[in-house]
Amino acid sequence: MKIQTECVPCLLKRVIYETKQSTKDKNLQTRAIRNACWVFSEIYDPNTSSAIIATKVHKIVYDTLGDKDPYKHLKNQSNVVAKSLLPKVEGLIKASECPLKTSMICSIIGNMMDFGIAGSSAKPEMLKNVFKKTFDEGLGYDNYMPLEKLLKKAHNIVLFTDNCGEIVFDKILCREIKNFNTNIFLTLVVRGEPIISDATIEDVEELQFKEVTDEILTTGCFAIGIDFRNLPSKLDKSLKKTDLIICKGMANYEAFSETDYRPIAYLLRTKCSAIANSMNNPIGVNAIKVYE
Amino acid sequence: MKIQTECVPCLLKRVIYETKQSTKDKNLQTRAIRNACWVFSEIYDPNTSSAIIATKVHKIVYDTLGDKDPYKHLKNQSNVVAKSLLPKVEGLIKASECPLKTSMICSIIGNMMDFGIAGSSAKPEMLKNVFKKTFDEGLGYDNYMPLEKLLKKAHNIVLFTDNCGEIVFDKILCREIKNFNTNIFLTLVVRGEPIISDATIEDVEELQFKEVTDEILTTGCFAIGIDFRNLPSKLDKSLKKTDLIICKGMANYEAFSETDYRPIAYLLRTKCSAIANSMNNPIGVNAIKVYE
Repeated sequence: MKIQTECVPCLLKRVIYETKQSTKDKNLQTRAIRNACWVFSEIYDPNTSSAIIATKVHKIVYDTLGDKDPYKHLKNQSNVVAKSLLPKVEGLIKASECPLKTSMICSIIGNMMDFGIAGSSAKPEMLKNVFKKTFDEGLGYDNYMPLEKLLKKAHNIVLFTDNCGEIVFDKILCREIKNFNTNIFLTLVVRGEPIISDATIEDVEELQFKEVTDEILTTGCFAIGIDFRNLPSKLDKSLKKTDLIICKGMANYEAFSETDYRPIAYLLRTKCSAIANSMNNPIGVNAIKVYE
Repeated sequence: MKIQTECVPCLLKRVIYETKQSTKDKNLQTRAIRNACWVFSEIYDPNTSSAIIATKVHKIVYDTLGDKDPYKHLKNQSNVVAKSLLPKVEGLIKASECPLKTSMICSIIGNMMDFGIAGSSAKPEMLKNVFKKTFDEGLGYDNYMPLEKLLKKAHNIVLFTDNCGEIVFDKILCREIKNFNTNIFLTLVVRGEPIISDATIEDVEELQFKEVTDEILTTGCFAIGIDFRNLPSKLDKSLKKTDLIICKGMANYEAFSETDYRPIAYLLRTKCSAIANSMNNPIGVNAIKVYE
């Protein structure tokens, strides 16, 4: 997705949020905010991907703060909250006529746990209050059937994770994918370095993702979504031979929507109008969208 | 008011809004947005008044766009909408036991017509839909009684206007002030140059403010609120001898709250948390607040 004008104030909101997560030092906060503005003044361009610009903005902020992981505490909290909801999720899946679809919806609801932007949650605990309501909404954009068809015939799939918290539900999703088609070789991809509240290798190791996946790779570097100019060769090979890419969340959409990888399925909560419009989806809904 | 972190994305939202009001040329829009970010990167400082920073940000945007009045069309529309509501306002004042207070509330409701920021209206027409509901809310912060006391004994008052649209109701307010205390010499102040949707001398001349005021001055220059370093000598003298300053809207609060002028009364809709917090008022209410 090319950056939209509205992404600029939204990204700055997130920068301010992470700055305050990282430090109480007002001078340091001010330097970080000023530097983020400076990056925008240098590289803002409606012909550039929002993911590329956001990566550079967050990079200078993290460097200015001297903080490799301003969201560390929030990420841990998000995982704790999501784990507390696991019995509810397992109950829904057990009671469901279509456990795979139900696991997808739960994993999309997990995508609401995202911080510092409009349409996201203020605190990880919020998910507990909105889970039932959001589950009852079902899918506001429903490409489940074409996705199920692709999964039926797939041998290799690559699944890109997004935030901590939702990663807990993604594990259930991985298990249900493997239950649905036992022939699938499932490659999971997490971020190469901590960036915003996204899951890294430590998170999936702690959550024992080995039990439900065949391979775990990383994006290899500090990037919102994926930096395709710095793709690790292993991930590059996986993407070339895969039958299906599944992307959780908005950042992966922002990056992959600039490429020709197909078929690709996006599972996300449409939290902002820029992405909702770009996907031609309503805003504020649970969405499964497949591009074949 | 010192600039708050949240003012940065909010101001950028407004910059984007005015840029789109001014031109469809994407390259020009991009240059304006980049330049606004550059100004922030140079001067953002939590020890500086939000009005001073906002003035410099809007200045570079107007200069980049080569547009002296990006809100021209919206300002005209706002006056048209407000005029269409005049019979309703006059009816309320006629039926009121306290016409002065009622005229203040109506004038504060007019302050909702403000564009490109959160808590404001998307279109001038919106005021028609929310007028009754907002009137019925009454005052969420009510210093009417101390203000009435000050008006009772005042000989000279200076009233600073804010946006177009609301200026139509401000005329009724001026009339009611003069009705309330016929001894008052009422000086009205509008912006010295077009800036955002604020009223200028053309607006008050067209609306025949001479009928209800004794003197009309301007702030003398391009500024959000008032630039006290460039105060015209006439206005400076008026402020020194006045018994009471009345300020409509948030921009005047942003500027005057950095000074010691007293007594001063703010009549506004608290549209953002930065100003609501600074005034120790709830957000989203009609407020009369007096500092003696």
